[in-house]
Amino acid sequence: MNILIKNVNALIGSEVKTADIYVKGEYIAGINAAPEGFVPDKTIDGSDKLAIPGLINSHTHSYMSVFRNLADDLSFDEWLFKSIMPREDIMHPEEAYWGAMLSCMEMLKTGTTCFMNMHIFPGMDSAAADKMGLKAVMTRGLVGSDRKDEGGLRRLQEHMEERDRFKDNPRIKFKLGPHAIYTCGQDYLEYLLQTAKDTDQQFHIHLSESAGEVQNCYKEHGKSPVEYLDDMGFFDVPTAAAHCVHVSEGDMDIMAKKGVSVLHNPKSNLKLANGTAPVPRMVEKGINVCIGTDSQASNNNLNMFSDMNFAALLPKGETAVPTVCAAREVLKFATVNGAKALGFSDTGEIAEGKKADIVLLDLLRPEFYPRVNLTAALVYSANGSEVDTVMVDGRILLENGHLTQFDEAEIYAKVEEAAKRLG
Amino acid sequence: MNILIKNVNALIGSEVKTADIYVKGEYIAGINAAPEGFVPDKTIDGSDKLAIPGLINSHTHSYMSVFRNLADDLSFDEWLFKSIMPREDIMHPEEAYWGAMLSCMEMLKTGTTCFMNMHIFPGMDSAAADKMGLKAVMTRGLVGSDRKDEGGLRRLQEHMEERDRFKDNPRIKFKLGPHAIYTCGQDYLEYLLQTAKDTDQQFHIHLSESAGEVQNCYKEHGKSPVEYLDDMGFFDVPTAAAHCVHVSEGDMDIMAKKGVSVLHNPKSNLKLANGTAPVPRMVEKGINVCIGTDSQASNNNLNMFSDMNFAALLPKGETAVPTVCAAREVLKFATVNGAKALGFSDTGEIAEGKKADIVLLDLLRPEFYPRVNLTAALVYSANGSEVDTVMVDGRILLENGHLTQFDEAEIYAKVEEAAKRLG
Repeated sequence: MNILIKNVNALIGSEVKTADIYVKGEYIAGINAAPEGFVPDKTIDGSDKLAIPGLINSHTHSYMSVFRNLADDLSFDEWLFKSIMPREDIMHPEEAYWGAMLSCMEMLKTGTTCFMNMHIFPGMDSAAADKMGLKAVMTRGLVGSDRKDEGGLRRLQEHMEERDRFKDNPRIKFKLGPHAIYTCGQDYLEYLLQTAKDTDQQFHIHLSESAGEVQNCYKEHGKSPVEYLDDMGFFDVPTAAAHCVHVSEGDMDIMAKKGVSVLHNPKSNLKLANGTAPVPRMVEKGINVCIGTDSQASNNNLNMFSDMNFAALLPKGETAVPTVCAAREVLKFATVNGAKALGFSDTGEIAEGKKADIVLLDLLRPEFYPRVNLTAALVYSANGSEVDTVMVDGRILLENGHLTQFDEAEIYAKVEEAAKRLG
Repeated sequence: MNILIKNVNALIGSEVKTADIYVKGEYIAGINAAPEGFVPDKTIDGSDKLAIPGLINSHTHSYMSVFRNLADDLSFDEWLFKSIMPREDIMHPEEAYWGAMLSCMEMLKTGTTCFMNMHIFPGMDSAAADKMGLKAVMTRGLVGSDRKDEGGLRRLQEHMEERDRFKDNPRIKFKLGPHAIYTCGQDYLEYLLQTAKDTDQQFHIHLSESAGEVQNCYKEHGKSPVEYLDDMGFFDVPTAAAHCVHVSEGDMDIMAKKGVSVLHNPKSNLKLANGTAPVPRMVEKGINVCIGTDSQASNNNLNMFSDMNFAALLPKGETAVPTVCAAREVLKFATVNGAKALGFSDTGEIAEGKKADIVLLDLLRPEFYPRVNLTAALVYSANGSEVDTVMVDGRILLENGHLTQFDEAEIYAKVEEAAKRLG
């Protein structure tokens, strides 16, 4: 299908300018210049719209929407061990599937077209993302003591089978997902490192999220979690590390040198009382910083606009420097940097030749007036509800703020049912 | 007019429960029990709605919406002295009026029914709030060196005249608004203190917003801004103090003892790189903490849901205690505590006998599923765009998310025009 988005305010590079965008099949085939013989099947009037590249949520757990607003304002132990984990233990795979469907719906409605996930139910999150039309990197959360740990091997096996099942699907990719250094023994991590090299996979891991994790690592290994992994050779495999709140200057130097992408989750890190990652220092050191929402159990939504807002404001307060993490920088975190970390080289930008992963926001909202600087408005004023139209690979998945292919009421009902059963 | 909101999820006290709300004229006349002879003129099906008391934005500058997204990611001096103030100098009163109209529209659309304002154009912000149907406390920003300063006296005179003009309007109240200790000389402050006592007015002031303000006060007076005002007897007049970021334990003890309300502006304080107010300590000391957005020039919106989210999340990260500023506490900041500070004793709660200042949110949104804990959802999941219906004193000002009495397009056009002229 050929789509012409006419006379739209478009974020192209880091500038918003008026443009005509020509979408041909899966691709952006031209900007301000029609490809030869282009006849639009559909023309969208963009005069009161703002086009941005689909946002990239670099770290979440999509099945966990069923735990939204279930356990707030609690200590970490009460939250994880008394509220979340007992329910995960009795959760059915189809409940994870409907949870993931709700998350995909929430992401589309707030302008996210691509995300990286860590899950525990094989195939459920992937099926939902695929069905809803999003792009995703899927990682089965891997937990185990050593290479003989049956549970650890089973989880790895599940991952490999799922990866194999989707091998011909260009929208669903996979990384290896050791959960964290405190849930994976050293021998298991070394086994996963070998597996990653043997099967040409990259890593997605939780890293240096809490002060406790770092303290325990010093006690056990005499070094920081980043040093521990680096000494193991872990970062020889390209790694995307979520959180990285408690990292030293030396840790950041290692991450910069080894090309580790940081998946910054500002809201989740505050909510679980872990603090704030030193993002301005990371940027200075040249680290590829991305933004993730984490799950609804610790956020409590999957709205990248809200996390962009926190990512821009928090470091100004923390460093007392109002110029750090400027709007343009933060938009990069949420688009091109995310695309890089996730391995989708053909998305994250509105540019000729890129995939047509485009979000249109409705500008007829008070928060967009006056229309002085729409780049700043995206980060400081928007709340995500302005998203009107979303396309992925040129397919329109959301229109007038509603899903084009799915019954929203069914998704709500299934999630309500799951939440009721899980109590 | 009699309105029945039937079978609605309502925040009553700090619990969400299903209720029927009976509105008779300006008042909530019954909850779950119809007043004698009640015949509804209008019945609203509340089954997929959440009713909350209208939110109270305790500190803003409504005319400043024309400066939204004009000057971001700048140093404080560049922001204030090079971007904002030169434009204020050439601004026309009617531009301030349309800016205030946009702010009122934005507040209604995000569930705010009552706000406290500091402005510089006599009568403009008041006229907009009155016309749009909101409740407000208006304060003319007072700046002056001493009691003979002509400018200082003129500004005070403007305030007194405006106050007099609205004396029969129960929705528009007034406080005396010395801008700050660094823009008012000691003699001028003492004169305002006497005026406040003579005319039975209360204070609204910016206080201890930046580290620089506190340092300068120590240099000049050998004490903190809070001590300086306290020693002057300033707090003998009930005071609502915005920001209070840089306050000591001793300062907070004074504020608690003297009943000073703190108007917490979490987003503005981050954006201008001032830091975060020690709200958990304030709460422990029994200080009445409220939430304000500050203006769009330093936020960049007037969306209380976003500031509630920051107010709940920030202190958890700062203190490493995940239980501080729980959802219920933060909702109190934004409702009953605000009502108390602003002097509107009959709003801020859904309760029989209170004014019918009620906001209905649409629950058919992904962020509200599952519907497990709607109190938490208001603070952690909502973004404000869910606001569907707003009434103030029983008058419906917003319905289906749109203004009932005004042409939104006209407001946008006027603000665009102003922004273009101001450059």
